Amino acid sequence: MDIVLKENERIDDLQIKGLKIIQDKEGFCFGIDAVLLANFAKVKKDARVVDLGTGTGIIPILLAGKSKAKEIIGIEIQEKVAQMANRSVYLNHLEDKVKILNADLNHLETILKKNEFHVVTSNPPYMHPDGLKNPNDQKAISRHEIKCTLEDVIKTASSFLMHHGKFFMIHRPTRLADIISLGRAYKLEPKEIQFIHPKVNKAPNLVLIQFTKAGKPELKILHPLYVYDENGEYTREIREIYAKEDIGEI
Amino acid sequence: MDIVLKENERIDDLQIKGLKIIQDKEGFCFGIDAVLLANFAKVKKDARVVDLGTGTGIIPILLAGKSKAKEIIGIEIQEKVAQMANRSVYLNHLEDKVKILNADLNHLETILKKNEFHVVTSNPPYMHPDGLKNPNDQKAISRHEIKCTLEDVIKTASSFLMHHGKFFMIHRPTRLADIISLGRAYKLEPKEIQFIHPKVNKAPNLVLIQFTKAGKPELKILHPLYVYDENGEYTREIREIYAKEDIGEI
Repeated sequence: MDIVLKENERIDDLQIKGLKIIQDKEGFCFGIDAVLLANFAKVKKDARVVDLGTGTGIIPILLAGKSKAKEIIGIEIQEKVAQMANRSVYLNHLEDKVKILNADLNHLETILKKNEFHVVTSNPPYMHPDGLKNPNDQKAISRHEIKCTLEDVIKTASSFLMHHGKFFMIHRPTRLADIISLGRAYKLEPKEIQFIHPKVNKAPNLVLIQFTKAGKPELKILHPLYVYDENGEYTREIREIYAKEDIGEI
Repeated sequence: MDIVLKENERIDDLQIKGLKIIQDKEGFCFGIDAVLLANFAKVKKDARVVDLGTGTGIIPILLAGKSKAKEIIGIEIQEKVAQMANRSVYLNHLEDKVKILNADLNHLETILKKNEFHVVTSNPPYMHPDGLKNPNDQKAISRHEIKCTLEDVIKTASSFLMHHGKFFMIHRPTRLADIISLGRAYKLEPKEIQFIHPKVNKAPNLVLIQFTKAGKPELKILHPLYVYDENGEYTREIREIYAKEDIGEI
């Protein structure tokens, strides 16, 4: 099958097992968030996985590269973005393992069975949609809570996870109280949290959370992850994550 | 008034404005937690403050030293401990400002008026009481949730705070999900969190939380506080806190 690139699209080499990804130069390109989330998510052999708001398909593609999951389904509401992600799946010959569905995560019950998945992942839109000039813009939809709220994401993750299934999410620390309260409201118990700081002694600007459906309450705050050292270079830990995912500097 | 020391008691010099504290050598002595909480708590001029589970009275005494609060009330359920704290108040000539009440924080409504306080502080027992050999032991009561649970502390803090009053607490990070959910259940919105790590790259073992009663949801995670440097010495930030509180090494 030939992969056709549309206007403004480019193919980026992920440098892991020859994986590649198509991105729209004018649209939302994946960032360190996706790499950290894919590294944080634990996916066992034969696991069935759903990624909510998959965008370019970066999370399913990275997870397919690092795990022996049976099936990884990426859900993307924007048709054009879902098609692009789907072309990345074919480009990588992952179509037997990774499926991209162009669907609204608030209406998945007609296409996926509830309580069946081992793992859900999500790198959802972080920002409030208030005051947006162009709420239909593709980047705006990827970044802002326009088509789905934090509650939608957490509720959907819980619905499709099996008992003791795991949900891995990355978000902003400012929303942590909402994340924890909403998690508990939908039976997702926060079990591990890791804060990501731009530097030592700086406040965190990202947070990784692992929930367990119907898990026992006991939260572990992991050691902090620092992105840059004093010289503005990636820290050793970040370099090791990139090396492990093997996708080089982005 | 002469201050009588009982068996096993000693007077420690806090080295701030000549303040002193009586502690029971066999009982629970205040630690870095109390110093960090007193440093973290913001107490404005003429504020009315309640400290729940005051123990030796260290928090009211440190707050009296650093602030211009109008009134600071320490609540302690253990009679012997409350009496000792009270003697520390007299020893420091703080009896016009600091009151120690020997009372159960679950039954304060007969002695204090609700919705009247600007600030509540608490360094409550951290540990589960399961499997305790001697649950009536004084140290056990200070450390374990025997006489009050985390929910009791949060509920009481909320009851006595005025609208937009602030609650400052220190606890274990393992309880953070409970702390946030219970806070919201009792209208205390978590506004600032600071994790305390034994060292850089180590997971935190303490967490400071500031809630605002009926506050707007928006959480700030502050920069991490590291207690020891690579050489096992207090970090500069911890030394500055001790210097500010002016109570030397403990």
